Amino acid sequence: MRVRVLDADTGDLRVVLVPKNIALANGLRGGSRVKVVGNSRYVTAWVVVSGEEGEEVLLSKSVSTVLGNPKEIELSTYSVVPSVDYIKKKLKGVKLSEDEIRSIIKDVTSGVLGDAEIAAFVAAQTSVGMDVDEIVSLTRAMVETGNVLRFEEPAHDIHSIGGVPGNSKVSIVAVPIIASAGVFIPKTSSRAITSPAGTADTMEVFAPVSFTEEEVLELAKKVKGFIIWGGTLNLAPADDILIRVEHQLKLDPTSQMVASILSKKLSMSVSNLIIDIPTGREAKVESIEEARNLSSLFVQVGNKLNLSVRCAITYGGQPIGYAIGPALEAREALETLMGNGPMSVKEKAVALAGLVLEVAGVAPRGSGRKVALEIFESGKALQTFLKIVEAMGGNPRVKPEEIPLGRYKAEVKAPIDGYVTGVYNGALSRIAMAAGAPQDKSAGVRLYVKRGHKVKEGQTLLEIYSNSEALLDEALKLVDVLKPITIEGMLLETFPEYL
Amino acid sequence: MRVRVLDADTGDLRVVLVPKNIALANGLRGGSRVKVVGNSRYVTAWVVVSGEEGEEVLLSKSVSTVLGNPKEIELSTYSVVPSVDYIKKKLKGVKLSEDEIRSIIKDVTSGVLGDAEIAAFVAAQTSVGMDVDEIVSLTRAMVETGNVLRFEEPAHDIHSIGGVPGNSKVSIVAVPIIASAGVFIPKTSSRAITSPAGTADTMEVFAPVSFTEEEVLELAKKVKGFIIWGGTLNLAPADDILIRVEHQLKLDPTSQMVASILSKKLSMSVSNLIIDIPTGREAKVESIEEARNLSSLFVQVGNKLNLSVRCAITYGGQPIGYAIGPALEAREALETLMGNGPMSVKEKAVALAGLVLEVAGVAPRGSGRKVALEIFESGKALQTFLKIVEAMGGNPRVKPEEIPLGRYKAEVKAPIDGYVTGVYNGALSRIAMAAGAPQDKSAGVRLYVKRGHKVKEGQTLLEIYSNSEALLDEALKLVDVLKPITIEGMLLETFPEYL
Repeated sequence: MRVRVLDADTGDLRVVLVPKNIALANGLRGGSRVKVVGNSRYVTAWVVVSGEEGEEVLLSKSVSTVLGNPKEIELSTYSVVPSVDYIKKKLKGVKLSEDEIRSIIKDVTSGVLGDAEIAAFVAAQTSVGMDVDEIVSLTRAMVETGNVLRFEEPAHDIHSIGGVPGNSKVSIVAVPIIASAGVFIPKTSSRAITSPAGTADTMEVFAPVSFTEEEVLELAKKVKGFIIWGGTLNLAPADDILIRVEHQLKLDPTSQMVASILSKKLSMSVSNLIIDIPTGREAKVESIEEARNLSSLFVQVGNKLNLSVRCAITYGGQPIGYAIGPALEAREALETLMGNGPMSVKEKAVALAGLVLEVAGVAPRGSGRKVALEIFESGKALQTFLKIVEAMGGNPRVKPEEIPLGRYKAEVKAPIDGYVTGVYNGALSRIAMAAGAPQDKSAGVRLYVKRGHKVKEGQTLLEIYSNSEALLDEALKLVDVLKPITIEGMLLETFPEYL
Repeated sequence: MRVRVLDADTGDLRVVLVPKNIALANGLRGGSRVKVVGNSRYVTAWVVVSGEEGEEVLLSKSVSTVLGNPKEIELSTYSVVPSVDYIKKKLKGVKLSEDEIRSIIKDVTSGVLGDAEIAAFVAAQTSVGMDVDEIVSLTRAMVETGNVLRFEEPAHDIHSIGGVPGNSKVSIVAVPIIASAGVFIPKTSSRAITSPAGTADTMEVFAPVSFTEEEVLELAKKVKGFIIWGGTLNLAPADDILIRVEHQLKLDPTSQMVASILSKKLSMSVSNLIIDIPTGREAKVESIEEARNLSSLFVQVGNKLNLSVRCAITYGGQPIGYAIGPALEAREALETLMGNGPMSVKEKAVALAGLVLEVAGVAPRGSGRKVALEIFESGKALQTFLKIVEAMGGNPRVKPEEIPLGRYKAEVKAPIDGYVTGVYNGALSRIAMAAGAPQDKSAGVRLYVKRGHKVKEGQTLLEIYSNSEALLDEALKLVDVLKPITIEGMLLETFPEYL
């Protein structure tokens, strides 16, 4: 059948608009799902039957792009989809084989399984869970169904499981320390899904982060480290589809998280990986026991896939540093590299970089932090960072104060004298997002206090930046509702209560 | 915003096509979901942004119909949907409150929850399950979100949980027996979802089965019983949506099945219900213990909803009677009412009708079957059935042999002399469906043998009917693959095996 591209934006929704004569001849009903084959690839789409006759099937861009913009296609209906039975099996509590998991992931990637089936798979992982073997199979299947980049030297990486605002800048400080020691770190990162800034969003303030495979291989010849967005490289593409459904359902099952992180890293041929597990109130992991269990799981799954994994359990009970949102975090990262940043950001970056230097064999066991700190304090990490920015096509003469922030600003002040008793991750993330982050890179929250600080009435607790007055108002309203910072006065109570 | 109806068939898929200028002004992205409000009702739909500008939003028929064909609508994006959190809670194993379940069902009905969220809810019921309180809440919520018909006299009903081919004709024989005794039985039934014939499909061979609420109330004044399709009456509409997703996922969790059946009956103001639980190999329920547990669950949930329920555990290890498919089953039902049908169909119908006569108080306890049999053998049930057919707009002079069967017919013969050792439900259903049932009413399978029968080589085991030669071929291929009937020779083995 001849095709044209539909002149409409359907986003991720995959649609084929079929003239009614073609629909009739092929037994296609409106609202059914159909297999669209073109250029030897295939994808599943929803059928809309046009009220008019015609000779061409119209493909939404989302369909045409996946098939490599074919000139002709075939449409066929689905009969038996075995992966649906495997999802059912998992829901009933049965362990799945490697072949069964591969079948599910293939069908997720090709679009044979729709949102309902994918949701059931995510639900099964939430309620039933998966054991180490199953997570290994899941990770392997996700790698196999995507692209794998191969480099000339062993690749190392650091990755945070996320969940704590302000964390995106840590990698931006750590990667150049590692690269300065001659250790190769081709870091791919994600954009924010449910947070105000992913590492890719923050790095993009300095330089472009979207590269083709060829460009990435070129980049690897010029610099020992870089921070790019993984989204254009077709690495473990099932992951992006699963994450979209997880986000819609507000689910984040452990098995899928582990497979998601490890599959992306294996797709970049990483052989040594340090995983940061921020732990504390309102982080993804709230207790140290949970963090230890998760660490053990990462290490076991990694080992079975020839990926050496070491986990770092870090404090995640309040934001990392003082800046939340891409531009604010970019400023803070650069200030840190220049020696003027918060101690907590420097410490975390140096500690994680040190662990990489140890596993890479360039620092003796137990002295990684010391070696990383020396590199940091010598100014080499800053130099390396600016070289990375230049190699990626950014401005190597960037100054922190030149990074633009939102045009509109609001301040939130302390209502009383007292001590800061809480600085809340969830509330601060939502406020920064309400102000426009991460789409508006210059939106976000700058904190002036952390837990334990002493404050005076009227002192600034935080600033909110936005390029929209309306969004700034929304964010301020959320401050009232969510109370992102709590302060307790010196006088806690009197006895008797009243005189 | 002004609207028009989109000249295209999207089936159940809900789409709004928004001109790009309107999308821009309202911040709507292609592929996102939007709340469409019109005529004080609302529904969720997928956004497609047109490549052209315009002043009107185009609604798919599926959207326009639900909103009662509005002239103007408002579009708004969703923010927080609490029911998503409740589904997550259930997946994590927590019992849900009545309010939480009501919130989920409301959002299912209005379309706020999409296929992914509904799939997760069905998955949670499969893997975690629900207790009696939760099923009561689920049933109540499903009734509340739909229409309830009220009659002038107490309503009784019989309902089979299904799963056995050939079962759709049993109600057609039982309902007129019950109505002949003066007991009111306003039976609503479903069309086949995963089987070759639903009771509504088979009844439709005799008369129209789609009626408005007013027509149903009129019908109830003319006849004591009828068999209609529930689909046009907006009874527990959440059920239809949930069933569609269950079917897609091939899941059928017990809690949803119980709520589904009871909610439809409560929506018809039924106060006494007999539930048929066919039990045996390849039926929905395979063991007597399972059947007893399910019976107890139905009774407990029913009691909490003021619905008196009695369950009949019946033999379901092979098809009921000899006919599978709407027209074949209609013929067999009519033959049975005329006294020329298989003993098994008559026995099952008489037994179920007898239970209704007992709970309705028109037969003393223990003598329901006897009273039902007398009515059946007197010919009253046949007369009543033909009156029902006439009241529903069908032909009261219908003859079994005049009911048209498929133009093409194939016979399957016994390959050897021997005994029939297996007649398989699943295989026979799939063969009848491959031949075109239930869409092609005259397609199906006629059996000539049941388990235990003695057969001679070359004797006909079954006939397949279809209106399409291609489909008949498909069905015959399935016979080879699925082996719906097994025959074992008289000589089972020799010793020694070879001479």
